[in-house]
Amino acid sequence: MTAIEIPDGSPFGPDNLPYGVFSTQDGSRRVGVRLGDTVVDLSLLLLDPVFAAPTLNPFMAQGRRRWDEARERIRDAVAGPVPKQALHPLREVRLHLPFEVGDYVDFYASEHHAANLGRLFRPGAEPLMPNWRHLPVGYHGRAGTVVVSGTGIVRPCGQRKDPGEAAPTYGPSRRLDIEAELGFVVGTGSALGERIGVGDFAEHVFGAVLVNDWSARDLQAWEYVPLGPHLGKSFATSVSPWVVPLAALEAARVPLPGQIPAPLPYLRGGADWGLDVDLAVEWNGEQVSRPPYREMYWSPAQMLAHLTVNGASTRTGDLFASGTVSGPAKHQRGAFIELTWGGTEPITVKGEERTFLRDGDHVAITATAPGPHGARIGFGEVAGTILPAR
Amino acid sequence: MTAIEIPDGSPFGPDNLPYGVFSTQDGSRRVGVRLGDTVVDLSLLLLDPVFAAPTLNPFMAQGRRRWDEARERIRDAVAGPVPKQALHPLREVRLHLPFEVGDYVDFYASEHHAANLGRLFRPGAEPLMPNWRHLPVGYHGRAGTVVVSGTGIVRPCGQRKDPGEAAPTYGPSRRLDIEAELGFVVGTGSALGERIGVGDFAEHVFGAVLVNDWSARDLQAWEYVPLGPHLGKSFATSVSPWVVPLAALEAARVPLPGQIPAPLPYLRGGADWGLDVDLAVEWNGEQVSRPPYREMYWSPAQMLAHLTVNGASTRTGDLFASGTVSGPAKHQRGAFIELTWGGTEPITVKGEERTFLRDGDHVAITATAPGPHGARIGFGEVAGTILPAR
Repeated sequence: MTAIEIPDGSPFGPDNLPYGVFSTQDGSRRVGVRLGDTVVDLSLLLLDPVFAAPTLNPFMAQGRRRWDEARERIRDAVAGPVPKQALHPLREVRLHLPFEVGDYVDFYASEHHAANLGRLFRPGAEPLMPNWRHLPVGYHGRAGTVVVSGTGIVRPCGQRKDPGEAAPTYGPSRRLDIEAELGFVVGTGSALGERIGVGDFAEHVFGAVLVNDWSARDLQAWEYVPLGPHLGKSFATSVSPWVVPLAALEAARVPLPGQIPAPLPYLRGGADWGLDVDLAVEWNGEQVSRPPYREMYWSPAQMLAHLTVNGASTRTGDLFASGTVSGPAKHQRGAFIELTWGGTEPITVKGEERTFLRDGDHVAITATAPGPHGARIGFGEVAGTILPAR
Repeated sequence: MTAIEIPDGSPFGPDNLPYGVFSTQDGSRRVGVRLGDTVVDLSLLLLDPVFAAPTLNPFMAQGRRRWDEARERIRDAVAGPVPKQALHPLREVRLHLPFEVGDYVDFYASEHHAANLGRLFRPGAEPLMPNWRHLPVGYHGRAGTVVVSGTGIVRPCGQRKDPGEAAPTYGPSRRLDIEAELGFVVGTGSALGERIGVGDFAEHVFGAVLVNDWSARDLQAWEYVPLGPHLGKSFATSVSPWVVPLAALEAARVPLPGQIPAPLPYLRGGADWGLDVDLAVEWNGEQVSRPPYREMYWSPAQMLAHLTVNGASTRTGDLFASGTVSGPAKHQRGAFIELTWGGTEPITVKGEERTFLRDGDHVAITATAPGPHGARIGFGEVAGTILPAR
């Protein structure tokens, strides 16, 4: 039996306990929690077969009461000495996609991001569409290309047409970008014809991850009318390997900045699920942005209520993401197209003028949030390196 | 041992052999083929455990060579007497969703439909967007709400805003519609970063189904800018219970009507996968439309090549649909919004003037295609009844 060492000030203390799926050399995938820089094998700690599964889905499907109970048991167990064979140094394990993704919906919930993109994609027109302040605009992305942090991102090819060109050409994207987002994972779903009210958010949502919704802006700009983004987004979406339980984010809850006009009744009451999460974007090791999640216009409780108000069913593993997190200031923008104003205002990264992503570039998005007793809650990171087009 | 009776002229003769998943009273789900009005239990006919699975996915994952081999074995086996316990009258079985859906992408491949919708949604503007003749426009739909024919369709609620209204209101859709489509089911997928060329269509695609992409036009019109349809479509998409193998559609292959301008090289060569499938739409038992699939501008081989040209991976069970099938003539339009020109030109159904769907309405879409030796290949039907909003 061994006590778990947690470095002072670690954002992975006993108030966080994020869940992930890991494997060791020659070992099969199983569920663990992160404490400091240690991964604790829950299949050995709690001796519950649900944690010997290769994804979090079976555990997530058990529902809020079981999640709360397991969290208590884990907290109690890790406070004392634990069996040595349940502990693995983080650097010695391989982390996998923590859940099997059902449907993936991406929202567009930052007013600053939506207005910036509106100005860039539709110059001269009203930046926000008439519907934007009435509903959380969103669309379905490709669930099958959600990948775990660390997966190499092959530069996508496709059609793009510069304004000066008469016809589109085919080739590798020349405007490859990131979108720094938070994603929310559905634990227990809802049946066809049912709704999840704003007040039932915490009954259904298991936790949150960091998301990088890689975007090929040139492909997107050419293809997106009238049915929305497709190939400009579908080549890869990266998520962080640790799912932070919703319970760990209680101290991070803040009111939304304010919604005018007041939303329709089915979206009201979800305004208490703003989240004071600080994101940071590193480009080749240099911090280039600090997107503040507390500035988001729509809350995740409102996103889920909207998603299901038409009776659409939800499933364990459904992922819905916030859309790019951008604050009002330039250094708070969560996409390079905004940071460099469509590539017309390069920024300096490691001494070089940069706009969009080059092959070999590495992007890492991290985040922390306030926890209880002055602690910080860490999300870890979602990172990826750009590989040349094939 | 019993011989299987096939009524003269049945579109479910030995050249069709569509696959489905069925159960009998107290029985578990398993894979069968339809011959005439008989369902043959393949788990008993071929004694292969892959057909005892509750979905077609394990069989579809085995690939083209195994599909061809199984088709040969089934054809041989059903030509003679078969074990009586393998046979079930169609009316005595329950048919289920035949495959577990991976990702669902809906295209927009009919020029007539896209132009009609452009005129209705964006009056006064050019009906086709500049990208439309260069790429098969498509978007991701909700995989978790793909349901089998016969599932009741609850009228969706959501936000809608009439042109004369100052703000949106919430309530049941007032413009509930259908979209008659063909869907294509991926059998063997492709890895992240790979492409499926137009020439490899038949290696990857297992077969085709009928699709009714139910659409709430009022929700859609308000929400769809700039990220595309979401709640207007995500409440339900119905598919027919029988997957017609691609091999059964060989005699239905026709050249596309013609593509001007010539598509980019990665989309060329897919023009030989036009399909001469005749759809028919019945509204409360009265035939209201005959959409001709041979009029489609983009082929399914081009759709799949486009879908993966950015390196997006595909999985067994991925479904991609054609978008509404509409021909040039009014009686060939596959959506009521087109047939009634946005509700301004009602049509007569069972003696009543009708525009959009009322509660209790029943819609059935059927289709047949030419088979070998003058036979017809039947798709069966995709049907649904509208239930009141909850």
